[in-house]
Order: sequence, then C-alpha cells, then structure tokens
Amino acid sequence: MNISPDFMRRIAGAAAAETLPRFRSQGAVVNKLAAGFDPVTEADREAERAIRALIGAEFPDHGILGEEHGSENLASRHVWVIDPIDGTRAFISGLPVWGTLVGLTVDGDAVAGMMSQPFTGELFYANADGAFYEGPGGPRKLAARRTTKLEDATLFTTTPALFKGEARGRFDRFETRVQLSRYGTDCYAFAMVAAGSVDIVVDPGLKPYDIVALIPIIEKAGGVITTFDGRPAENGGDILAAATPELHEAAMEALRA
Amino acid sequence: MNISPDFMRRIAGAAAAETLPRFRSQGAVVNKLAAGFDPVTEADREAERAIRALIGAEFPDHGILGEEHGSENLASRHVWVIDPIDGTRAFISGLPVWGTLVGLTVDGDAVAGMMSQPFTGELFYANADGAFYEGPGGPRKLAARRTTKLEDATLFTTTPALFKGEARGRFDRFETRVQLSRYGTDCYAFAMVAAGSVDIVVDPGLKPYDIVALIPIIEKAGGVITTFDGRPAENGGDILAAATPELHEAAMEALRA
Repeated sequence: MNISPDFMRRIAGAAAAETLPRFRSQGAVVNKLAAGFDPVTEADREAERAIRALIGAEFPDHGILGEEHGSENLASRHVWVIDPIDGTRAFISGLPVWGTLVGLTVDGDAVAGMMSQPFTGELFYANADGAFYEGPGGPRKLAARRTTKLEDATLFTTTPALFKGEARGRFDRFETRVQLSRYGTDCYAFAMVAAGSVDIVVDPGLKPYDIVALIPIIEKAGGVITTFDGRPAENGGDILAAATPELHEAAMEALRA
Repeated sequence: MNISPDFMRRIAGAAAAETLPRFRSQGAVVNKLAAGFDPVTEADREAERAIRALIGAEFPDHGILGEEHGSENLASRHVWVIDPIDGTRAFISGLPVWGTLVGLTVDGDAVAGMMSQPFTGELFYANADGAFYEGPGGPRKLAARRTTKLEDATLFTTTPALFKGEARGRFDRFETRVQLSRYGTDCYAFAMVAAGSVDIVVDPGLKPYDIVALIPIIEKAGGVITTFDGRPAENGGDILAAATPELHEAAMEALRA
C-alpha cells in the first residue's frame, strides 16, 4: 500500500486548523504556564484528535500511537504514530520551527511519514515514491547533501543539556570536530537534513512519536537515521541522523569516543 | 522626522529580493563552506548594497554603518545601522529565523528600526508612532508580555558557549531561575520579546549592527533593552532585553550574582 500525497496534505490541513489559530495566541499558553510549564497544550490535544479522526475514517483497521491520547489497536500490522506538535517550546515561544509529525509503520518499519509547519506553509513527506517538499518556492524532491566528513558538516541538537554524565563529555568532544553547530530546533532540523541544508542531527532520549514520521523522510532523501549504536530508530532512544552513510559512520564513531 | 511604514516595507522588499532566492540554495553556501566557514554570504553583501541604495536615495545626508560594506558619513546626526542577514548560521542551515536588520540612530539614540524575515513574510518595525507587525495573521501593534518574575519567564540566548569564564557560571545559574530556556535564535528571539512570545533574551558580545534596529522595536512594545549593567544598548556589548522593567531589573540582578 502507498499513502497518497493528498492524504498527507489532508492531515497537514486538519492539524493546521487546530494549531495555527492558537500559535502566538497568548491566552492559551499563559494558562498552561500558570499551572507550571506543561508542554501539552490545547492545540496538541485538538490536533491529535483531528488527525486520529482522518486516519480512523480512511484506515479503520490500523493501529494508532499518539502522544496525547494514547494507543489503540497496536496489534495491527499497520500503526500510525502521531506527535501533533513536536517542539512545544518553539510553539510557546512563537518560533516557526515546530511541526506536526505523523508516520506509518508496517510490521514495525517506518514506511511513510510527514512533517508539516503551518505558519511557513511547509510540508515534508515521504511515501513509497520518494521524499518530497511542498511550500514557498514550489514543490520539489528532497535530497540530502553529499557531505561525507565531520569537518565539513553542520550539526544540530536541541540542547547539549539533554546529554547527561559521560554522554555530555562525548557530545562536547564530538561538537569540536564539526564545522558548525547549532541548538534548539527539534523536528525542523531533521527535515533540514532531508532538504540538504543540515548534515547531522543528534537528539538523545527521543520517544517513537518524536521520530517515526521523520525516518522515511530522511531515508528516502538519501540520509541515514539510527540510534547512536546503529539500531533502527523506530523505537526512539538516542537518535543520530546524517546526510550520507559515510558521515553517519563517522558520527557514530565520534560519539563513541 | 518619522520613518514611514512604506519605507520600512521598501527596505524589507529590496533585501528580500537578494536574500530569499539564495536561501536554501546549496551552491552559494557550499562555496563559502569550502573556503572555511565564513558567515559573509553573497546574499549578505548584495542585500546591504540594495539597502544602502534606498537609504542613499531617500536620505542623502545621513550616515550609514553596515556589517559588510563599512561606514560612511558617521559625523551625521542621523546614522543608519545595517545587518543584512542577522543569524547567518540559521540562514545557512535553512531555518527561517534569521532576519534583515536596519535601524536609525539620531544623535546616538535608536529611534526607528525594522527586522524582516522574508521566508515567513514577516516585518517587525518601530517608528515614532509605535511598534508594529505585518505578516501571516494580519497587521497588529506589537506588545511585550507583562511578565515580572524570573520564575514565570522564558529565556533565549544564541548559545551558552558565548559566555566565557566566570560569565558562563553566572549564565548557568541565571538559567536555573527561569521557567524555560532555549537556544539558537539570534534576532528572531528579540522580535519575539516585542511580540509577547518570549520574556528575556541575553546575548553577549553583540556589535551595534546586531542590535540597533531591535532597540526601538522592543522599547515601543513596552520592553526594556540595555547592556547587562544597564547602559544603552546602541553601542552593542552584552545585551539584555526583557518584557517589563521589573523583569529587566530582576534579570540584571541575577546576571550579577
């Protein structure tokens, strides 16, 4: 089975209808903040509800694993994995680098996925036909950059503070070996690997819903994405994405040093 | 004298014509990277040239201080301060959080300024009439949030690595006192203070062209922006912007601790 571009667009549209009106609307966010910082916003919950309704109508036998509303029918061969707003801190802070993530696994392998950013009007998606972009500048195929060496690479991570204990030391040394590093981007940085603008992303401690949607987008664009020790990324964990197999190998080695 | 919204829009448009076609165009950037990382891109140089031409035609007696093409007529009471692309690393990495900064000082005081982000189609500007936003969602007045306490505040900085020696320890302690912190945004974070989405931005070692344009935007939106020790921000240095006078005072005190 293949997931059509039209279904990807319908998911992006349904999510946008719930997230965009609440982006930079202070009321909703301030209420959350008043109760202590809680990344689960109203937008998160309502967007996931809308996405689940679309999936349920189109694929009633498929399972669903969502960040906000839990899981159903996980015994199905087909399971959709949803993060309605990845990058809640960016959302709360008004930065247009959060995204809606929806991926499909078949027998545990991520085979299709989408990341949408409604404020910029961007959709990154992958299905059996490849990895694609729609947004300002027009539609195009996604293709990762051909960088093979750490010293030529740009590196992103959400924040070095997520690396604890010895892992922090390993990250800090790794960082000195790349050309340029930058923090604070969540899913958007992974999309930029597929788009050929960023070479490496590392993020420790991810959940499946943080990453499943992005796996096919990166792989179909020519990149490689696994855990730090080279296992499949579908179950989350410490995740490394790189633009080429050579760069992925070099980054894995550097992260072990 | 007042700077009209129309002139702000013309500057934004002239800069966009040079920057946007080169954003996410791999060729231009890869050439820069091949010669070692150099944040001065072709887009930077051409955008500044276009902005200077507009200012020169409209205000031939005014001085200009630019990041790329140096300074002219700085003895004038009126001096324009230009950073064609603030956030070069974001630009290179495909992230839509860089901006074009153009500010006007009169006798050394920043009285008008604009920050534009052409990929998102956003313009933040301030003149004698106030601070304003134009972009997706429609035009509106900019108003900083009314946050007064550190424990309720969101904090942004480009990267903690810019704080050296004892300053790093002070920043790290400061960071533990706020509700949420995030890295990696350059000028966009300052615009978000004016827009009411972020409460505090600190950035050490800024040049005048990194900050002059943003001063009136933050001040006219109700925020406060100075150096860490409370002096005017126009000459650059270690810069602190906060949503309210109370929060600014609390942040200054915390940064000294």
